[in-house]
Amino acid sequence: MSTIQETIHQMGRQARAAAYRLAQLSSDEKNAILLAMAAAIRQRVPELLAANALDIAAGKEKGLSAAMLDRLILDEKRTEAMAAGIDQVATLPDPVGQILDAWQRPNGIRIEQTRVPIGTIGIIYESRPNVTADAAVLCFKTGNATILRGGSEAIHSNRAIAEALAAAGAPDHAVQLIPFTDRESVAVLAGMDKWLDLIIPRGGKGLIETVVSLARMPVIKHYDGICHLFVDAAADQEMAVALTADSKTQKCGVCNALETLLVHRDIAAEFLPKVAAALRAKNVELRGCDRTRAILTDIAAATEEDWTTEYLDLILSIKIVDSLEAAVAHINEYGSHHTDVIVSRDEATAESFLRQVDSACVFHNVSTRFADGGEFGFGAEIGISTDKLHARGPMGLRELTSYQYRVRGNGQTKA
Amino acid sequence: MSTIQETIHQMGRQARAAAYRLAQLSSDEKNAILLAMAAAIRQRVPELLAANALDIAAGKEKGLSAAMLDRLILDEKRTEAMAAGIDQVATLPDPVGQILDAWQRPNGIRIEQTRVPIGTIGIIYESRPNVTADAAVLCFKTGNATILRGGSEAIHSNRAIAEALAAAGAPDHAVQLIPFTDRESVAVLAGMDKWLDLIIPRGGKGLIETVVSLARMPVIKHYDGICHLFVDAAADQEMAVALTADSKTQKCGVCNALETLLVHRDIAAEFLPKVAAALRAKNVELRGCDRTRAILTDIAAATEEDWTTEYLDLILSIKIVDSLEAAVAHINEYGSHHTDVIVSRDEATAESFLRQVDSACVFHNVSTRFADGGEFGFGAEIGISTDKLHARGPMGLRELTSYQYRVRGNGQTKA
Repeated sequence: MSTIQETIHQMGRQARAAAYRLAQLSSDEKNAILLAMAAAIRQRVPELLAANALDIAAGKEKGLSAAMLDRLILDEKRTEAMAAGIDQVATLPDPVGQILDAWQRPNGIRIEQTRVPIGTIGIIYESRPNVTADAAVLCFKTGNATILRGGSEAIHSNRAIAEALAAAGAPDHAVQLIPFTDRESVAVLAGMDKWLDLIIPRGGKGLIETVVSLARMPVIKHYDGICHLFVDAAADQEMAVALTADSKTQKCGVCNALETLLVHRDIAAEFLPKVAAALRAKNVELRGCDRTRAILTDIAAATEEDWTTEYLDLILSIKIVDSLEAAVAHINEYGSHHTDVIVSRDEATAESFLRQVDSACVFHNVSTRFADGGEFGFGAEIGISTDKLHARGPMGLRELTSYQYRVRGNGQTKA
Repeated sequence: MSTIQETIHQMGRQARAAAYRLAQLSSDEKNAILLAMAAAIRQRVPELLAANALDIAAGKEKGLSAAMLDRLILDEKRTEAMAAGIDQVATLPDPVGQILDAWQRPNGIRIEQTRVPIGTIGIIYESRPNVTADAAVLCFKTGNATILRGGSEAIHSNRAIAEALAAAGAPDHAVQLIPFTDRESVAVLAGMDKWLDLIIPRGGKGLIETVVSLARMPVIKHYDGICHLFVDAAADQEMAVALTADSKTQKCGVCNALETLLVHRDIAAEFLPKVAAALRAKNVELRGCDRTRAILTDIAAATEEDWTTEYLDLILSIKIVDSLEAAVAHINEYGSHHTDVIVSRDEATAESFLRQVDSACVFHNVSTRFADGGEFGFGAEIGISTDKLHARGPMGLRELTSYQYRVRGNGQTKA
């Protein structure tokens, strides 16, 4: 057994033991520790910034892009945001202990389905050091022990943050950071299903694919958001222009930004010039199907690849469709089952769209940008799941819990 | 691409298309088709028995054990039970369409969390041909398309059953049986996450392990039941004897049968001879820890292996523990997190046990044998999950569904 394997397995055993202690803490006890974690972050700002400076220096030496360096950097504003985020999690209701269902059987046994923590959760993530605090704190709030495995670029920052959190009175090993950043550590973590109940990879498609192919335990996946907006023949066109512009441009580098616009043929000639003007005013590059290009004659052709691309950029592909059914078929075939919108004044058409589109979030007359735990009112978000099992769409604290059946009787036997 | 791969990928595409049609069926439409499926089974009894005779003849030639042949055999009683089971599923409430939660945000958007089918489900199973009908029907009731991959011993029976179900008016490809029974077909199925949302392996540990190591999509696992019963110092000893005997002997070859008895040291000297007498009267072989053998002097020693063995037989391991905490620690360490029981008159002790034991089902003064979808009142059971994500413990129709957020607004933008 390699040193990496030995170390990570030992962390797994420790996480399991910590999880049993965490599950017994009351909400008040957990919240007091959360407030202490926030205080520890605030107290240790000088240490955090010093650790971060090492990462930044190494990153510059490695030639990281300006965008990557920006993701990596910590300053007093970002550490304060981290601490304030923890304070806020302390104020959220604790889902653990909630009774989901309760009933009595004719033989007198009383069955209760009660929310409990999942147990132990592995988080594998890339550059942003704030994920160390965000993920650990949400898992802690819900009584789960966390094993974090961050990227090599942020190792000093991550270590300093994890040490601050661990110093705040939580049970030993409630939050552990893997000291290795090579690929073997991902494989070891993904293989130890005895000690790890769930893995959540946070990062690009390559990272998620790697974890999926290695993991023996459940993985909650946050794949691409190839989001669509369908402008129905019965749309309020002014609203459709506003929703398209907001969905595409309010923030374009995120999974709930719009990537493909579908337009009903009956209004295309009237609507497309209007929406194109609004998008061009925001510097959006347009690519269209042949029929779109017959109306917007100066735009590039969209290829088959465009329909399956998450641009994360100011680019929008446009397709004219013959019917609601054609829009639904395109979305279900090419989309990523994340968030899709219909704009229509016709309630029946809209309801039909909501029922037929196989996506986590289906919206009527709302910007795609509202597919978000904060906008849903969850208070905190661990991500937006593109899975259908356990958690789908924006994930809040509830989605970090499991349940258990507690059954009480007075000697019932089956024989 | 091999023929097997091509065929199964084609079935995957067809299943996805079928799932979209199934998701649009009303409960009444699905129930009418279910009744037609039951009728088709009854009509085709001669064909089913003829196909089954081929499997039985091949099984005898291969030298299958009497127990395996018994699992394989179909007769008029078993085909009628299959049909009656389908009729019964038609009478159960349909969870699809249920509104799980609904709320409005300050900006006016209305969010609804609605139950929807999962989509496409793969079932990989071993010898019993009735699984073909049971699994397909539960998936159909919840609007899911099914791809079945049964074992080679039952291939003729499985094909005849699947044909009967498919002939009952369901959308094309709602229920498909893979015509191959080799290992490659399992690997192909487990790899096609584009078309399959979930795999449920039903069979022994080896089969489940194989699927877990290959699958790229979620797997719901039904691992062993290493179930415990802890007799607390404050137990009603007569009740404890009855519950032990029922849990161990009412049916011993199942996952919710008792495998290890834990006895509090303060009552061991009095309790053990009583429970031993009752178990011996039922021909149960006892194995004990050293302290147990100081009281029951004629029983064999339990080794470390006994604590982690699912006997599925009339064998019981016994251990004396010093405290509730020791009982909990043993169960969490050696158990399979399936079903564990405390027998006690002390409510506080019992509640502490229920809160600390990390198992799907935790019982107070109830036989382990009630860990069952039927006994819980689910009306139907697809299995007992030992997973913590999505479905834990007895799985009914609810656990074959996902959800979707349907959001309605009037033009809300984020900017």
